[in-house]
Amino acid sequence: MKLYDFELAPNPRRVRMYLAEKTLTVPSVQVNLRQGEHFRDEFRAENPALMVPALVLDDGVLITETMAICRYFEALHPTPPLFGTTAREQAMVEMWNRRAELEGFLAVAEALRNSLERFKDRALPGPRNYAQIPALAERGKARVRGFFEDLEVRLGDSAYVAGDSFSVADITAWVTIEFAGWVAEKPREDQRHLCRWHAQVASRPSAQA
Amino acid sequence: MKLYDFELAPNPRRVRMYLAEKTLTVPSVQVNLRQGEHFRDEFRAENPALMVPALVLDDGVLITETMAICRYFEALHPTPPLFGTTAREQAMVEMWNRRAELEGFLAVAEALRNSLERFKDRALPGPRNYAQIPALAERGKARVRGFFEDLEVRLGDSAYVAGDSFSVADITAWVTIEFAGWVAEKPREDQRHLCRWHAQVASRPSAQA
Repeated sequence: MKLYDFELAPNPRRVRMYLAEKTLTVPSVQVNLRQGEHFRDEFRAENPALMVPALVLDDGVLITETMAICRYFEALHPTPPLFGTTAREQAMVEMWNRRAELEGFLAVAEALRNSLERFKDRALPGPRNYAQIPALAERGKARVRGFFEDLEVRLGDSAYVAGDSFSVADITAWVTIEFAGWVAEKPREDQRHLCRWHAQVASRPSAQA
Repeated sequence: MKLYDFELAPNPRRVRMYLAEKTLTVPSVQVNLRQGEHFRDEFRAENPALMVPALVLDDGVLITETMAICRYFEALHPTPPLFGTTAREQAMVEMWNRRAELEGFLAVAEALRNSLERFKDRALPGPRNYAQIPALAERGKARVRGFFEDLEVRLGDSAYVAGDSFSVADITAWVTIEFAGWVAEKPREDQRHLCRWHAQVASRPSAQA
């Protein structure tokens, strides 16, 4: 198998952080998105969605979507569990991971891709071009701040984002905070639960992956 | 437990369709979103995200997010599997379900909420108000058409969206097509794989749920 990766992009980072938590090593190939390597014909032939990360299995089956790649490895290597174990834990991980993605991660992407010149006509990833919408840049930043407020409340009640244990919801939320730095948004110092948790996750070896 | 539901809304419909496939019955409470019942203080106290569907467990734990609710029941009632069984099946279900949500379902929501007068200042669901952005209405419709094109290709190779068996990816994709009717988008007649599959899913009893 091989993992298409790009070290500067936040979604591949989520996969690398997941694999590091599992102490798994997967052969990877760098696709330099900043140099447009995902538009090359060879890559497009293998991965028409033009997305990174992407996992190609030995028989050529393609798995895109960060969480689909993580779930593939979770099914093969269930320990330590990063998607929860009981029904309730699984539901809380799914819920918080989605909230972190939809309300946090996608909001940062919206702010970034609708403001930077290098994303002109590339306001969304994938094979089709979409023009930037400047109003989305400001809305994205406002949404990120809202997400940080909600996360501060949550982390006042809970050691980790989805409950007592570290999970993919922490990976998504933590990478979202790192990613938010690209649009000059970060947790406020008085969001102390959020800052406590952010520092705690930053000290895990997987945060360097 | 109780399930907050609204019979006209597409996300609760995904949960109802899932429960019907599992032959599960859950006590439900209708929250009339068109009459703004989700803004009432009693509902807000229980569910600050103001989202429907929402599942409240007997000890008061709240599970929001359609797929988190479905995964809760999947862990308790694994047969018939609607999230795949093998690692590869689980990955394909996750991948296609996400593509259907991000590229299809959310695109319809974008088109709808940024054009209808009744969503003025409610361009996104949740506790915070966001103004409509008219450019998103057109972009949403274009994205839905792109999603239908990709789904047509996929269903030319595969009986169901994620592979040989019916799964939550079919539920999301099918409800997306129903939902797309609200913004006057539908599969073209020459998208024959898509139309074949749409009719096939429509004949399942769960499509009436």
